Amino acid sequence: MTQSAFDTANHDDYPTRLAAEKWQERKDPVVWGQWTPEAPLTRAQTESFEKNGYLILRDVFTPGEVAALQKESALLRSGDTGIAEDNVITEPGSNEIRTVFRLDEQNALFDRLARDRRIAGAVSFLLDDDVYLHQSRLNYKPGFTGKEFYWHSDFETWHAEDGMPRMRAISASILLTDNDALNGPLMLMPGTHRNFIACAGETPEDNHKTSLKKQEVGVPSHDALTRMAKEHGIDYASGSAGTVVLFDCNTMHGSNGNITPFPRSNAFFVYNAWSNRVVEPFAAKAPRPAFLSSRDPKGPIAIEAGTIG
Amino acid sequence: MTQSAFDTANHDDYPTRLAAEKWQERKDPVVWGQWTPEAPLTRAQTESFEKNGYLILRDVFTPGEVAALQKESALLRSGDTGIAEDNVITEPGSNEIRTVFRLDEQNALFDRLARDRRIAGAVSFLLDDDVYLHQSRLNYKPGFTGKEFYWHSDFETWHAEDGMPRMRAISASILLTDNDALNGPLMLMPGTHRNFIACAGETPEDNHKTSLKKQEVGVPSHDALTRMAKEHGIDYASGSAGTVVLFDCNTMHGSNGNITPFPRSNAFFVYNAWSNRVVEPFAAKAPRPAFLSSRDPKGPIAIEAGTIG
Repeated sequence: MTQSAFDTANHDDYPTRLAAEKWQERKDPVVWGQWTPEAPLTRAQTESFEKNGYLILRDVFTPGEVAALQKESALLRSGDTGIAEDNVITEPGSNEIRTVFRLDEQNALFDRLARDRRIAGAVSFLLDDDVYLHQSRLNYKPGFTGKEFYWHSDFETWHAEDGMPRMRAISASILLTDNDALNGPLMLMPGTHRNFIACAGETPEDNHKTSLKKQEVGVPSHDALTRMAKEHGIDYASGSAGTVVLFDCNTMHGSNGNITPFPRSNAFFVYNAWSNRVVEPFAAKAPRPAFLSSRDPKGPIAIEAGTIG
Repeated sequence: MTQSAFDTANHDDYPTRLAAEKWQERKDPVVWGQWTPEAPLTRAQTESFEKNGYLILRDVFTPGEVAALQKESALLRSGDTGIAEDNVITEPGSNEIRTVFRLDEQNALFDRLARDRRIAGAVSFLLDDDVYLHQSRLNYKPGFTGKEFYWHSDFETWHAEDGMPRMRAISASILLTDNDALNGPLMLMPGTHRNFIACAGETPEDNHKTSLKKQEVGVPSHDALTRMAKEHGIDYASGSAGTVVLFDCNTMHGSNGNITPFPRSNAFFVYNAWSNRVVEPFAAKAPRPAFLSSRDPKGPIAIEAGTIG
């Protein structure tokens, strides 16, 4: 275990929240590990992640595991388990639960899921480090009224507002419902992880209080998004429940709203490299609260093999 | 040419805006014409329209025709042509044009498009009658901020608020931009045209003033939509610019919002059978204005063959 020795006084490789938007090259590897035949991902999967900035793994979990996770998810969402109010985000204009934060701390089964070798083992290989959970949540996009989530790079926010030094973090989305093109799937722009778009505008105080419902600062301009979409295209993560989507912290992503009757739900874990632990925010007065940005992890997570549920 | 002889005092085959939602069987044919080898649609196309309630016709217009229509569409949207304000609907929360009404009256090229044999000829065959334009518009769903359009049957509104007696009208959407699953395409539930869902709730006065931005009355309940979506599934109309989508007046449809940079634009014509001309509204105090519901057509449209532009 290495200590984070990042000198915030003298180093900021990704300055952002500037007077004007600015493009720069990524200064970090995408795949930190060295592929060998023993790696938990195939060579093709590893190369695909490196090239596109994401990887869709289908049928990772068995139907029995998926059923157990869905049951637990419904229980958490029902409100019967007494989740503290500050761990919950509701839909704009309603009381329907949109997000449950600190998922691993709320629930033993989801904690076990976060530590599963099929996910965390693959991520740990890609990052070539022990990992801990920077953020952990259950997303619920209801049918009929599910709202959109605008385009953003997670790293831009995590760097600016949480103090994450380097691009050495990977998100995993575990689909708990079948996802197709029409019920607001995760959309990704392949290849956008190779550029960092420093965003225009100073970070307002307590930005996260509004940005979780509708992000205004820390998102690229229409011009930048149009350029990226034309150059790279837009893909989306479809698959049946149990599919896992891994994506790099700097891949541009978002999702449309959902008027179909079919809800979209997923468990979402952000794995950060232990050596990349957060420091002071690079472009905000104070760090975001701990439910968004784990600031003092006890240690790397203990990866576990075997069946869930 | 037959005169509309519908007796509104004694007949309402589709009562709606009731105390409670109610399902009933459709009482009209879907395809009124008799297919022969000379028909403007193939037998398979005709049967598909009858079964699903819609039909997607690809590559109907040449690239040159599409380019001419796109150019004209941009001109109309720019506002330089001086369209009267009451023919224009803007996006909620912005001044961006969402819809231009009375499209055939605004523009000679789009008038010619509406009368094109490849569209109007096919519709006239399906309805087995001369046709006129009940409504005519240009829809523009901008990139990034295009809003959703909630599920509805057009006929329910046209019957209740415009006084359209029977299900003998067909809409044609002519795509002016490439449409895929992600930029808010038209979604349709195949087979839903065979049931009429009488909606709950009285029609508020001037309902169209808000319903065009966000429809509250005249839409099915979540339960009804869930039942239909589970039974029939949800399809969507994708295709490159120049694709034509024909759909029955009672097919349940809607569209999601669009955060992609790619706008979605289409010309939209509602063809009503000449014998099905509107009478007094069946469930509203006064008919909607003429830009939504042509109330006194001079005569059937003159269908034209040949190249457009």
